[in-house]
Amino acid sequence: MDKQFKIKVPCSTSNLGPGFDTLGLALQLFLDVDVSTATDKTEISLTGEGKDYLPRDESNYIYKIYRESCEIVGVTPQPLLLNISSEIPLSRGLGSSGSAVVAGLVIANELNNGSLSRDQLAEIATRIEGHPENVSASCYGGLTVGCLANEKLFSCQILPPGELKAVAIIPEIEILTKEARTLLPNEVPFKVAVNNVQRASLFTAAMATGRFDLLREASKDMLHQPFRKKLIPGFDAILAGAYKAGAHAAFLSGSGSTIVALSSDGHEKIGNAMMQVVQELDYTAKILILDIAQHGYKVD
Amino acid sequence: MDKQFKIKVPCSTSNLGPGFDTLGLALQLFLDVDVSTATDKTEISLTGEGKDYLPRDESNYIYKIYRESCEIVGVTPQPLLLNISSEIPLSRGLGSSGSAVVAGLVIANELNNGSLSRDQLAEIATRIEGHPENVSASCYGGLTVGCLANEKLFSCQILPPGELKAVAIIPEIEILTKEARTLLPNEVPFKVAVNNVQRASLFTAAMATGRFDLLREASKDMLHQPFRKKLIPGFDAILAGAYKAGAHAAFLSGSGSTIVALSSDGHEKIGNAMMQVVQELDYTAKILILDIAQHGYKVD
Repeated sequence: MDKQFKIKVPCSTSNLGPGFDTLGLALQLFLDVDVSTATDKTEISLTGEGKDYLPRDESNYIYKIYRESCEIVGVTPQPLLLNISSEIPLSRGLGSSGSAVVAGLVIANELNNGSLSRDQLAEIATRIEGHPENVSASCYGGLTVGCLANEKLFSCQILPPGELKAVAIIPEIEILTKEARTLLPNEVPFKVAVNNVQRASLFTAAMATGRFDLLREASKDMLHQPFRKKLIPGFDAILAGAYKAGAHAAFLSGSGSTIVALSSDGHEKIGNAMMQVVQELDYTAKILILDIAQHGYKVD
Repeated sequence: MDKQFKIKVPCSTSNLGPGFDTLGLALQLFLDVDVSTATDKTEISLTGEGKDYLPRDESNYIYKIYRESCEIVGVTPQPLLLNISSEIPLSRGLGSSGSAVVAGLVIANELNNGSLSRDQLAEIATRIEGHPENVSASCYGGLTVGCLANEKLFSCQILPPGELKAVAIIPEIEILTKEARTLLPNEVPFKVAVNNVQRASLFTAAMATGRFDLLREASKDMLHQPFRKKLIPGFDAILAGAYKAGAHAAFLSGSGSTIVALSSDGHEKIGNAMMQVVQELDYTAKILILDIAQHGYKVD
Protein backbone atom coordinates (compact mmCIF):
# COMPACT_ATOMS: atom_id res chain seq x y z
CA MET A 1 0.00 0.00 0.00
CA ASP A 2 1.25 3.46 -0.83
CA LYS A 3 2.21 5.77 1.98
CA GLN A 4 2.01 9.50 2.31
CA PHE A 5 3.30 11.68 5.14
CA LYS A 6 4.75 15.09 5.91
CA ILE A 7 8.00 15.82 7.77
CA LYS A 8 8.85 19.14 9.39
CA VAL A 9 12.43 19.71 10.62
CA PRO A 10 13.60 22.87 12.41
CA CYS A 11 16.88 24.53 11.49
CA SER A 12 19.52 25.26 14.10
CA THR A 13 22.26 27.61 15.05
CA SER A 14 25.33 25.97 16.54
CA ASN A 15 28.52 26.58 18.53
CA LEU A 16 26.89 29.66 20.15
CA GLY A 17 30.30 31.20 20.68
CA PRO A 18 32.48 28.89 22.80
CA GLY A 19 30.56 25.63 22.34
CA PHE A 20 32.38 24.40 19.23
CA ASP A 21 30.96 21.05 18.05
CA THR A 22 28.98 21.02 21.31
CA LEU A 23 26.01 23.38 21.48
CA GLY A 24 23.04 23.49 19.12
CA LEU A 25 19.87 25.57 19.35
CA ALA A 26 16.81 24.69 17.27
CA LEU A 27 15.08 27.65 15.63
CA GLN A 28 11.65 28.07 14.03
CA LEU A 29 12.73 28.09 10.42
CA PHE A 30 11.80 24.85 8.75
CA LEU A 31 12.52 22.26 6.14
CA ASP A 32 9.23 20.65 5.08
CA VAL A 33 9.09 17.48 3.03
CA ASP A 34 5.91 15.84 1.70
CA VAL A 35 6.60 12.22 0.93
CA SER A 36 4.62 9.83 -1.23
CA THR A 37 5.49 6.34 -2.38
CA ALA A 38 2.83 6.40 -5.15
CA THR A 39 5.30 6.47 -8.03
CA ASP A 40 7.55 4.29 -10.17
CA LYS A 41 10.14 7.01 -10.59
CA THR A 42 11.62 9.48 -8.13
CA GLU A 43 10.37 12.97 -8.76
CA ILE A 44 11.25 15.96 -6.64
CA SER A 45 9.63 19.36 -6.59
CA LEU A 46 11.43 22.20 -4.87
CA THR A 47 10.22 25.46 -3.37
CA GLY A 48 11.99 28.01 -1.21
CA GLU A 49 15.73 27.98 -0.54
CA GLY A 50 17.79 26.17 -3.16
CA LYS A 51 14.87 25.69 -5.56
CA ASP A 52 16.79 27.12 -8.50
CA TYR A 53 19.83 24.90 -8.33
CA LEU A 54 19.29 21.82 -6.14
CA PRO A 55 18.87 18.56 -8.09
CA ARG A 56 15.38 17.20 -8.68
CA ASP A 57 16.42 13.60 -9.22
CA GLU A 58 17.95 10.86 -7.10
CA SER A 59 21.13 12.91 -6.71
CA ASN A 60 19.20 15.28 -4.42
CA TYR A 61 20.89 15.28 -0.99
CA ILE A 62 17.75 14.34 0.95
CA TYR A 63 17.08 11.43 -1.40
CA LYS A 64 20.72 10.33 -1.15
CA ILE A 65 20.52 10.36 2.64
CA TYR A 66 17.27 8.42 2.38
CA ARG A 67 19.06 5.74 0.31
CA GLU A 68 21.99 5.60 2.73
CA SER A 69 19.55 5.39 5.64
CA CYS A 70 17.71 2.49 4.02
CA GLU A 71 20.91 0.49 4.17
CA ILE A 72 21.35 1.39 7.82
CA VAL A 73 17.78 0.48 8.84
CA GLY A 74 17.78 -2.54 6.54
CA VAL A 75 15.09 -1.75 3.97
CA THR A 76 15.19 -1.59 0.19
CA PRO A 77 15.10 1.96 -1.16
CA GLN A 78 12.24 2.81 -3.47
CA PRO A 79 11.34 5.64 -5.81
CA LEU A 80 9.64 8.56 -4.04
CA LEU A 81 7.66 11.64 -4.80
CA LEU A 82 9.19 14.40 -2.69
CA ASN A 83 7.81 17.87 -2.33
CA ILE A 84 10.63 19.76 -0.62
CA SER A 85 10.00 23.22 0.71
CA SER A 86 12.81 24.87 2.63
CA GLU A 87 13.04 28.13 4.54
CA ILE A 88 16.64 27.34 5.55
CA PRO A 89 19.33 29.16 3.56
CA LEU A 90 22.16 26.89 2.40
CA SER A 91 25.83 27.27 3.38
CA ARG A 92 25.03 30.01 5.88
CA GLY A 93 25.64 28.17 9.17
CA LEU A 94 21.99 27.48 9.97
CA GLY A 95 22.23 23.71 9.86
CA SER A 96 20.57 23.12 6.49
CA SER A 97 22.69 20.03 6.03
CA GLY A 98 21.79 18.66 9.46
CA SER A 99 18.09 19.22 8.76
CA ALA A 100 18.40 17.42 5.42
CA VAL A 101 20.14 14.45 7.06
CA VAL A 102 17.37 14.22 9.65
CA ALA A 103 14.70 14.45 6.93
CA GLY A 104 16.29 11.71 4.81
CA LEU A 105 16.65 9.42 7.79
CA VAL A 106 13.10 10.07 9.00
CA ILE A 107 11.76 9.11 5.56
CA ALA A 108 13.59 5.77 5.71
CA ASN A 109 12.38 5.20 9.25
CA GLU A 110 8.74 5.99 8.44
CA LEU A 111 8.86 3.55 5.51
CA ASN A 112 10.19 0.96 7.95
CA ASN A 113 7.23 1.40 10.35
CA GLY A 114 9.07 3.89 12.59
CA SER A 115 11.20 1.18 14.17
CA LEU A 116 13.88 3.63 15.29
CA SER A 117 13.34 5.74 18.41
CA ARG A 118 14.11 9.45 18.31
CA ASP A 119 17.32 8.74 20.26
CA GLN A 120 18.45 6.10 17.78
CA LEU A 121 17.59 8.36 14.90
CA ALA A 122 19.57 11.24 16.41
CA GLU A 123 22.56 8.96 16.93
CA ILE A 124 22.55 7.65 13.36
CA ALA A 125 22.04 11.16 11.96
CA THR A 126 25.01 12.38 14.02
CA ARG A 127 27.20 9.56 12.67
CA ILE A 128 26.27 10.52 9.10
CA GLU A 129 26.89 14.22 9.80
CA GLY A 130 30.09 13.65 11.82
CA HIS A 131 29.40 16.16 14.59
CA PRO A 132 26.44 16.39 16.92
CA GLU A 133 25.35 19.99 17.35
CA ASN A 134 23.00 20.75 14.43
CA VAL A 135 21.58 17.27 14.09
CA SER A 136 20.78 16.99 17.82
CA ALA A 137 19.01 20.34 17.82
CA SER A 138 16.94 19.39 14.74
CA CYS A 139 16.04 16.07 16.38
CA TYR A 140 15.23 17.20 19.92
CA GLY A 141 14.53 20.94 19.78
CA GLY A 142 15.65 23.50 22.35
CA LEU A 143 19.30 23.78 23.31
CA THR A 144 21.18 20.55 22.89
CA VAL A 145 24.53 19.84 24.52
CA GLY A 146 26.60 16.85 23.59
CA CYS A 147 29.19 14.83 21.82
CA LEU A 148 29.65 11.78 19.67
CA ALA A 149 32.01 9.23 21.24
CA ASN A 150 32.79 5.84 19.74
CA GLU A 151 29.83 6.23 17.39
CA LYS A 152 27.53 6.79 20.36
CA LEU A 153 25.63 10.06 20.83
CA PHE A 154 25.55 11.68 24.26
CA SER A 155 23.10 14.55 24.12
CA CYS A 156 21.23 16.51 26.76
CA GLN A 157 18.33 18.81 26.01
CA ILE A 158 17.68 22.07 27.82
CA LEU A 159 14.60 24.22 27.18
CA PRO A 160 15.48 27.85 27.79
CA PRO A 161 12.64 30.17 28.87
CA GLY A 162 10.25 31.12 26.07
CA GLU A 163 10.87 34.84 25.74
CA LEU A 164 14.31 34.27 24.24
CA LYS A 165 14.54 34.84 20.49
CA ALA A 166 17.30 34.64 17.92
CA VAL A 167 17.99 37.63 15.69
CA ALA A 168 19.84 36.25 12.68
CA ILE A 169 21.68 38.36 10.14
CA ILE A 170 22.23 36.25 7.05
CA PRO A 171 24.79 37.74 4.66
CA GLU A 172 24.85 36.87 0.97
CA ILE A 173 28.22 35.23 1.63
CA GLU A 174 28.26 31.42 1.32
CA ILE A 175 30.64 29.49 3.58
CA LEU A 176 31.23 25.76 3.28
CA THR A 177 31.71 24.16 6.68
CA LYS A 178 34.40 21.89 5.29
CA GLU A 179 36.44 24.87 4.12
CA ALA A 180 35.82 26.85 7.30
CA ARG A 181 37.32 23.93 9.22
CA THR A 182 40.60 24.21 7.34
CA LEU A 183 41.10 27.64 8.95
CA LEU A 184 41.33 26.16 12.43
CA PRO A 185 44.70 25.52 14.11
CA ASN A 186 45.96 22.07 15.08
CA GLU A 187 47.11 23.24 18.50
CA VAL A 188 45.87 25.92 20.85
CA PRO A 189 47.30 27.48 24.02
CA PHE A 190 46.18 25.74 27.21
CA LYS A 191 44.53 28.95 28.37
CA VAL A 192 42.43 29.10 25.18
CA ALA A 193 41.11 25.63 25.96
CA VAL A 194 40.31 26.71 29.52
CA ASN A 195 38.63 29.90 28.25
CA ASN A 196 36.26 27.86 26.13
CA VAL A 197 35.66 25.14 28.73
CA GLN A 198 34.65 27.85 31.20
CA ARG A 199 32.43 29.78 28.85
CA ALA A 200 30.71 26.87 27.09
CA SER A 201 29.88 25.44 30.53
CA LEU A 202 28.71 28.83 31.78
CA PHE A 203 26.58 29.27 28.64
CA THR A 204 24.95 25.91 29.29
CA ALA A 205 24.31 26.72 32.97
CA ALA A 206 22.97 30.18 32.15
CA MET A 207 20.52 28.76 29.59
CA ALA A 208 19.41 26.07 32.04
CA THR A 209 18.71 28.57 34.81
CA GLY A 210 17.55 31.62 32.82
CA ARG A 211 20.57 33.67 33.93
CA PHE A 212 20.68 35.62 30.67
CA ASP A 213 22.81 38.29 32.37
CA LEU A 214 25.70 35.80 32.14
CA LEU A 215 25.39 35.08 28.41
CA ARG A 216 27.54 37.93 27.14
CA GLU A 217 30.65 36.79 29.00
CA ALA A 218 29.66 33.18 28.38
CA SER A 219 29.61 33.67 24.61
CA LYS A 220 33.25 34.76 24.37
CA ASP A 221 35.07 32.30 22.15
CA MET A 222 38.78 31.96 21.47
CA LEU A 223 38.71 28.62 19.66
CA HIS A 224 37.18 29.18 16.23
CA GLN A 225 35.66 32.64 15.73
CA PRO A 226 39.05 34.43 15.75
CA PHE A 227 40.09 32.30 12.75
CA ARG A 228 36.82 32.32 10.84
CA LYS A 229 35.70 35.88 11.29
CA LYS A 230 37.87 37.12 8.44
CA LEU A 231 35.33 35.52 6.09
CA ILE A 232 32.67 37.99 7.23
CA PRO A 233 33.46 41.69 6.73
CA GLY A 234 32.69 43.73 9.85
CA PHE A 235 32.24 40.69 12.10
CA ASP A 236 33.41 42.44 15.28
CA ALA A 237 31.38 45.56 14.49
CA ILE A 238 28.23 43.50 13.92
CA LEU A 239 28.65 41.86 17.34
CA ALA A 240 29.36 45.22 18.96
CA GLY A 241 26.24 46.67 17.34
CA ALA A 242 24.11 43.80 18.62
CA TYR A 243 25.42 44.23 22.17
CA LYS A 244 24.95 47.98 22.08
CA ALA A 245 21.33 47.42 21.02
CA GLY A 246 20.76 45.13 24.01
CA ALA A 247 21.56 41.57 22.91
CA HIS A 248 22.37 39.01 25.62
CA ALA A 249 24.80 37.21 23.32
CA ALA A 250 26.03 37.40 19.74
CA PHE A 251 28.12 34.86 17.85
CA LEU A 252 28.93 33.21 14.56
CA SER A 253 26.22 30.70 13.68
CA GLY A 254 27.90 27.39 12.90
CA SER A 255 30.78 28.17 10.59
CA GLY A 256 28.93 31.25 9.28
CA SER A 257 28.20 33.37 7.44
CA THR A 258 25.12 33.99 9.60
CA ILE A 259 25.59 35.84 12.87
CA VAL A 260 23.01 35.25 15.58
CA ALA A 261 22.14 37.46 18.53
CA LEU A 262 20.01 36.19 21.41
CA SER A 263 17.70 38.60 23.19
CA SER A 264 14.58 38.79 25.33
CA ASP A 265 13.31 42.02 23.77
CA GLY A 266 14.28 44.79 21.35
CA HIS A 267 14.74 42.22 18.59
CA GLU A 268 14.13 44.65 15.75
CA LYS A 269 16.47 47.23 17.19
CA ILE A 270 19.19 44.59 17.39
CA GLY A 271 18.54 43.49 13.83
CA ASN A 272 18.73 47.08 12.61
CA ALA A 273 21.99 47.67 14.46
CA MET A 274 23.60 44.63 12.85
CA MET A 275 22.19 45.53 9.44
CA GLN A 276 23.60 49.03 9.62
CA VAL A 277 27.15 47.67 9.81
CA VAL A 278 26.57 45.49 6.77
CA GLN A 279 25.10 48.36 4.79
CA GLU A 280 28.03 50.62 5.64
CA LEU A 281 30.36 47.91 4.34
CA ASP A 282 28.30 47.77 1.18
CA TYR A 283 27.20 44.16 1.03
CA THR A 284 23.77 42.66 1.42
CA ALA A 285 22.17 40.51 4.08
CA LYS A 286 18.75 39.76 5.45
CA ILE A 287 17.48 39.77 9.01
CA LEU A 288 15.24 37.08 10.48
CA ILE A 289 13.78 37.15 13.99
CA LEU A 290 13.22 33.55 15.02
CA ASP A 291 11.65 31.83 17.99
CA ILE A 292 13.36 28.90 19.63
CA ALA A 293 11.92 25.61 18.34
CA GLN A 294 10.89 23.73 21.48
CA HIS A 295 10.44 20.46 19.58
CA GLY A 296 12.51 18.55 17.09
CA TYR A 297 11.32 17.01 13.82
CA LYS A 298 7.66 16.10 13.47
CA VAL A 299 5.94 13.60 11.24
CA ASP A 300 2.26 13.92 10.26
CA MET B 1 31.31 46.61 71.78
CA ASP B 2 32.79 43.18 71.35
CA LYS B 3 31.41 40.87 68.72
CA GLN B 4 31.06 37.12 68.63
CA PHE B 5 29.87 34.97 65.75
CA LYS B 6 30.31 31.59 64.11
CA ILE B 7 31.14 30.89 60.47
CA LYS B 8 30.53 27.58 58.71
CA VAL B 9 32.05 27.05 55.25
CA PRO B 10 31.55 23.89 53.14
CA CYS B 11 34.47 22.28 51.34
CA SER B 12 34.33 21.60 47.62
CA THR B 13 35.50 19.28 44.93
CA SER B 14 36.45 20.96 41.67
CA ASN B 15 37.14 20.38 37.98
CA LEU B 16 34.90 17.26 38.07
CA GLY B 17 36.82 15.78 35.18
CA PRO B 18 36.70 18.11 32.16
CA GLY B 19 35.70 21.34 33.94
CA PHE B 20 39.20 22.61 34.67
CA ASP B 21 39.07 25.95 36.54
CA THR B 22 35.33 25.92 35.80
CA LEU B 23 33.23 23.52 37.86
CA GLY B 24 32.97 23.38 41.65
CA LEU B 25 30.69 21.25 43.81
CA ALA B 26 30.14 22.09 47.48
CA LEU B 27 30.22 19.12 49.85
CA GLN B 28 29.10 18.66 53.44
CA LEU B 29 32.50 18.67 55.08
CA PHE B 30 33.07 21.90 56.93
CA LEU B 31 35.46 24.52 58.18
CA ASP B 32 34.01 26.07 61.36
CA VAL B 33 35.39 29.26 62.84
CA ASP B 34 34.20 30.84 66.10
CA VAL B 35 35.21 34.48 66.14
CA SER B 36 35.44 36.86 69.08
CA THR B 37 36.84 40.36 69.23
CA ALA B 38 37.07 40.26 73.07
CA THR B 39 40.87 40.23 73.18
CA ASP B 40 43.96 42.44 72.98
CA LYS B 41 46.04 39.76 71.35
CA THR B 42 45.26 37.33 68.57
CA GLU B 43 44.93 33.80 69.88
CA ILE B 44 43.95 30.85 67.78
CA SER B 45 42.87 27.42 68.88
CA LEU B 46 42.83 24.60 66.38
CA THR B 47 40.95 21.33 66.26
CA GLY B 48 40.58 18.80 63.47
CA GLU B 49 42.60 18.85 60.26
CA GLY B 50 45.92 20.71 60.52
CA LYS B 51 45.72 21.15 64.29
CA ASP B 52 49.22 19.78 64.86
CA TYR B 53 51.11 22.05 62.49
CA LEU B 54 49.10 25.09 61.42
CA PRO B 55 50.23 28.36 63.09
CA ARG B 56 48.26 29.66 66.08
CA ASP B 57 49.34 33.27 65.71
CA GLU B 58 48.77 36.03 63.16
CA SER B 59 50.65 34.01 60.55
CA ASN B 60 47.68 31.62 60.41
CA TYR B 61 46.29 31.64 56.84
CA ILE B 62 42.73 32.52 57.86
CA TYR B 63 43.97 35.42 59.98
CA LYS B 64 46.22 36.59 57.13
CA ILE B 65 43.30 36.54 54.71
CA TYR B 66 41.27 38.43 57.31
CA ARG B 67 43.98 41.16 57.42
CA GLU B 68 44.17 41.30 53.62
CA SER B 69 40.37 41.48 53.46
CA CYS B 70 40.30 44.36 55.95
CA GLU B 71 42.33 46.40 53.48
CA ILE B 72 39.93 45.50 50.69
CA VAL B 73 36.77 46.36 52.64
CA GLY B 74 38.44 49.38 54.23
CA VAL B 75 38.52 48.55 57.94
CA THR B 76 41.38 48.42 60.42
CA PRO B 77 42.37 44.87 61.36
CA GLN B 78 42.14 43.98 65.03
CA PRO B 79 43.30 41.13 67.24
CA LEU B 80 40.89 38.20 67.27
CA LEU B 81 40.14 35.08 69.23
CA LEU B 82 39.63 32.36 66.64
CA ASN B 83 38.49 28.86 67.38
CA ILE B 84 39.14 27.00 64.14
CA SER B 85 37.77 23.53 63.69
CA SER B 86 38.27 21.93 60.31
CA GLU B 87 37.06 18.66 58.83
CA ILE B 88 38.71 19.49 55.48
CA PRO B 89 42.02 17.72 54.83
CA LEU B 90 44.76 20.04 53.54
CA SER B 91 46.51 19.70 50.18
CA ARG B 92 44.17 16.95 49.06
CA GLY B 93 42.13 18.78 46.41
CA LEU B 94 39.08 19.42 48.57
CA GLY B 95 39.27 23.19 48.49
CA SER B 96 40.62 23.78 52.01
CA SER B 97 42.38 26.90 50.76
CA GLY B 98 39.22 28.26 49.13
CA SER B 99 37.24 27.63 52.32
CA ALA B 100 39.89 29.45 54.36
CA VAL B 101 39.82 32.43 51.99
CA VAL B 102 36.04 32.61 52.28
CA ALA B 103 36.25 32.35 56.09
CA GLY B 104 38.85 35.13 56.39
CA LEU B 105 36.88 37.41 54.11
CA VAL B 106 33.58 36.70 55.91
CA ILE B 107 35.22 37.65 59.23
CA ALA B 108 36.31 41.02 57.82
CA ASN B 109 32.87 41.57 56.31
CA GLU B 110 31.03 40.73 59.54
CA LEU B 111 33.23 43.17 61.44
CA ASN B 112 32.30 45.78 58.83
CA ASN B 113 28.55 45.27 59.40
CA GLY B 114 28.15 42.82 56.55
CA SER B 115 28.40 45.54 53.91
CA LEU B 116 29.39 43.12 51.15
CA SER B 117 26.75 41.00 49.43
CA ARG B 118 27.38 37.31 48.89
CA ASP B 119 28.08 38.06 45.21
CA GLN B 120 30.64 40.73 46.08
CA LEU B 121 32.23 38.45 48.61
CA ALA B 122 32.48 35.60 46.12
CA GLU B 123 34.09 37.93 43.59
CA ILE B 124 36.71 39.25 46.01
CA ALA B 125 37.45 35.75 47.30
CA THR B 126 37.94 34.56 43.72
CA ARG B 127 40.37 37.41 43.02
CA ILE B 128 42.38 36.44 46.10
CA GLU B 129 42.33 32.76 45.16
CA GLY B 130 42.98 33.35 41.45
CA HIS B 131 40.51 30.83 40.06
CA PRO B 132 36.79 30.54 40.66
CA GLU B 133 35.80 26.94 41.15
CA ASN B 134 36.36 26.16 44.86
CA VAL B 135 35.61 29.61 46.17
CA SER B 136 32.32 29.87 44.24
CA ALA B 137 31.18 26.49 45.52
CA SER B 138 32.03 27.43 49.13
CA CYS B 139 30.17 30.72 48.72
CA TYR B 140 27.02 29.56 46.94
CA GLY B 141 26.71 25.81 47.52
CA GLY B 142 25.61 23.26 44.93
CA LEU B 143 27.35 23.01 41.59
CA THR B 144 28.89 26.28 40.50
CA VAL B 145 29.95 27.03 36.93
CA GLY B 146 31.98 30.06 36.07
CA CYS B 147 35.02 32.12 35.34
CA LEU B 148 36.88 35.19 36.46
CA ALA B 149 37.28 37.77 33.68
CA ASN B 150 38.87 41.18 34.14
CA GLU B 151 38.62 40.74 37.92
CA LYS B 152 34.88 40.13 37.62
CA LEU B 153 33.28 36.84 38.66
CA PHE B 154 30.70 35.21 36.41
CA SER B 155 29.20 32.30 38.28
CA CYS B 156 26.02 30.30 37.87
CA GLN B 157 24.65 27.96 40.51
CA ILE B 158 22.92 24.67 39.76
CA LEU B 159 21.35 22.49 42.44
CA PRO B 160 21.53 18.87 41.34
CA PRO B 161 18.83 16.51 42.66
CA GLY B 162 19.29 15.56 46.31
CA GLU B 163 20.00 11.85 46.05
CA LEU B 164 23.44 12.45 44.55
CA LYS B 165 26.36 11.91 46.92
CA ALA B 166 30.12 12.15 46.62
CA VAL B 167 32.27 9.18 47.58
CA ALA B 168 35.73 10.60 48.24
CA ILE B 169 38.86 8.53 48.59
CA ILE B 170 41.49 10.66 50.27
CA PRO B 171 45.00 9.22 49.99
CA GLU B 172 47.75 10.09 52.44
CA ILE B 173 49.52 11.78 49.52
CA GLU B 174 49.72 15.59 49.72
CA ILE B 175 49.65 17.53 46.46
CA LEU B 176 50.23 21.27 46.26
CA THR B 177 48.02 22.88 43.62
CA LYS B 178 50.84 25.19 42.59
CA GLU B 179 53.11 22.24 41.85
CA ALA B 180 50.37 20.25 40.17
CA ARG B 181 49.92 23.18 37.79
CA THR B 182 53.52 22.95 36.63
CA LEU B 183 52.72 19.53 35.16
CA LEU B 184 50.28 21.00 32.64
CA PRO B 185 51.30 21.70 29.02
CA ASN B 186 51.38 25.16 27.46
CA GLU B 187 49.66 23.99 24.31
CA VAL B 188 47.13 21.28 23.61
CA PRO B 189 45.79 19.72 20.41
CA PHE B 190 42.65 21.42 19.09
CA LYS B 191 40.73 18.18 19.51
CA VAL B 192 41.66 18.02 23.20
CA ALA B 193 40.15 21.47 23.68
CA VAL B 194 37.00 20.34 21.85
CA ASN B 195 36.84 17.14 23.94
CA ASN B 196 36.77 19.17 27.14
CA VAL B 197 34.41 21.87 25.84
CA GLN B 198 31.95 19.12 24.89
CA ARG B 199 32.21 17.18 28.10
CA ALA B 200 32.31 20.08 30.59
CA SER B 201 29.18 21.47 28.89
CA LEU B 202 27.53 18.07 28.89
CA PHE B 203 28.42 17.60 32.57
CA THR B 204 26.78 20.94 33.36
CA ALA B 205 23.66 20.10 31.35
CA ALA B 206 23.40 16.63 32.88
CA MET B 207 23.61 18.02 36.41
CA ALA B 208 21.02 20.69 35.61
CA THR B 209 18.54 18.17 34.24
CA GLY B 210 19.28 15.12 36.42
CA ARG B 211 20.52 13.11 33.41
CA PHE B 212 23.02 11.18 35.52
CA ASP B 213 23.23 8.52 32.80
CA LEU B 214 25.32 11.05 30.82
CA LEU B 215 27.85 11.78 33.57
CA ARG B 216 30.27 8.97 32.82
CA GLU B 217 30.98 10.15 29.29
CA ALA B 218 30.73 13.76 30.46
CA SER B 219 33.48 13.27 33.03
CA LYS B 220 36.14 12.24 30.49
CA ASP B 221 38.96 14.74 30.67
CA MET B 222 41.98 15.13 28.39
CA LEU B 223 43.22 18.49 29.68
CA HIS B 224 44.70 17.90 33.12
CA GLN B 225 44.10 14.42 34.55
CA PRO B 226 46.40 12.69 32.03
CA PHE B 227 49.28 14.84 33.30
CA ARG B 228 48.49 14.79 37.00
CA LYS B 229 47.45 11.20 37.48
CA LYS B 230 51.03 10.00 37.79
CA LEU B 231 51.03 11.58 41.27
CA ILE B 232 48.42 9.07 42.43
CA PRO B 233 49.38 5.38 42.14
CA GLY B 234 46.57 3.33 40.63
CA PHE B 235 44.56 6.35 39.46
CA ASP B 236 43.04 4.59 36.44
CA ALA B 237 42.30 1.45 38.44
CA ILE B 238 40.57 3.47 41.17
CA LEU B 239 38.30 5.10 38.57
CA ALA B 240 37.63 1.74 36.93
CA GLY B 241 36.75 0.26 40.33
CA ALA B 242 34.31 3.09 41.04
CA TYR B 243 32.59 2.66 37.68
CA LYS B 244 32.40 -1.10 38.05
CA ALA B 245 30.73 -0.59 41.44
CA GLY B 246 28.10 1.68 39.86
CA ALA B 247 29.41 5.25 40.05
CA HIS B 248 27.91 7.82 37.64
CA ALA B 249 31.22 9.67 37.42
CA ALA B 250 34.72 9.52 38.91
CA PHE B 251 37.48 12.10 38.66
CA LEU B 252 40.43 13.76 40.30
CA SER B 253 39.22 16.24 42.92
CA GLY B 254 40.88 19.59 42.23
CA SER B 255 44.55 18.84 41.67
CA GLY B 256 44.31 15.75 43.88
CA SER B 257 45.20 13.61 45.65
CA THR B 258 41.52 12.94 46.45
CA ILE B 259 39.46 11.09 43.89
CA VAL B 260 35.70 11.64 43.97
CA ALA B 261 32.98 9.39 42.61
CA LEU B 262 29.39 10.62 42.25
CA SER B 263 26.56 8.18 42.75
CA SER B 264 22.87 7.94 43.59
CA ASP B 265 23.22 4.68 45.55
CA GLY B 266 25.68 1.95 46.46
CA HIS B 267 28.01 4.54 47.99
CA GLU B 268 29.72 2.10 50.34
CA LYS B 269 30.26 -0.45 47.62
CA ILE B 270 31.91 2.23 45.48
CA GLY B 271 34.09 3.32 48.39
CA ASN B 272 35.16 -0.26 49.02
CA ALA B 273 36.00 -0.80 45.37
CA MET B 274 38.23 2.27 45.30
CA MET B 275 39.82 1.37 48.63
CA GLN B 276 40.67 -2.11 47.42
CA VAL B 277 42.91 -0.70 44.69
CA VAL B 278 44.75 1.48 47.18
CA GLN B 279 45.24 -1.42 49.59
CA GLU B 280 46.62 -3.63 46.84
CA LEU B 281 49.13 -0.89 46.00
CA ASP B 282 50.08 -0.76 49.67
CA TYR B 283 49.38 2.84 50.60
CA THR B 284 46.76 4.27 52.88
CA ALA B 285 43.70 6.39 52.29
CA LYS B 286 40.37 7.10 53.90
CA ILE B 287 36.87 7.04 52.45
CA LEU B 288 34.25 9.70 53.13
CA ILE B 289 30.68 9.60 51.84
CA LEU B 290 29.50 13.18 51.58
CA ASP B 291 26.22 14.88 50.76
CA ILE B 292 26.13 17.83 48.40
CA ALA B 293 26.09 21.11 50.37
CA GLN B 294 23.04 22.97 49.01
CA HIS B 295 24.11 26.22 50.66
CA GLY B 296 27.32 28.18 50.83
CA TYR B 297 28.92 29.73 53.93
CA LYS B 298 26.69 30.57 56.87
CA VAL B 299 27.16 33.08 59.69
CA ASP B 300 25.40 32.70 63.05
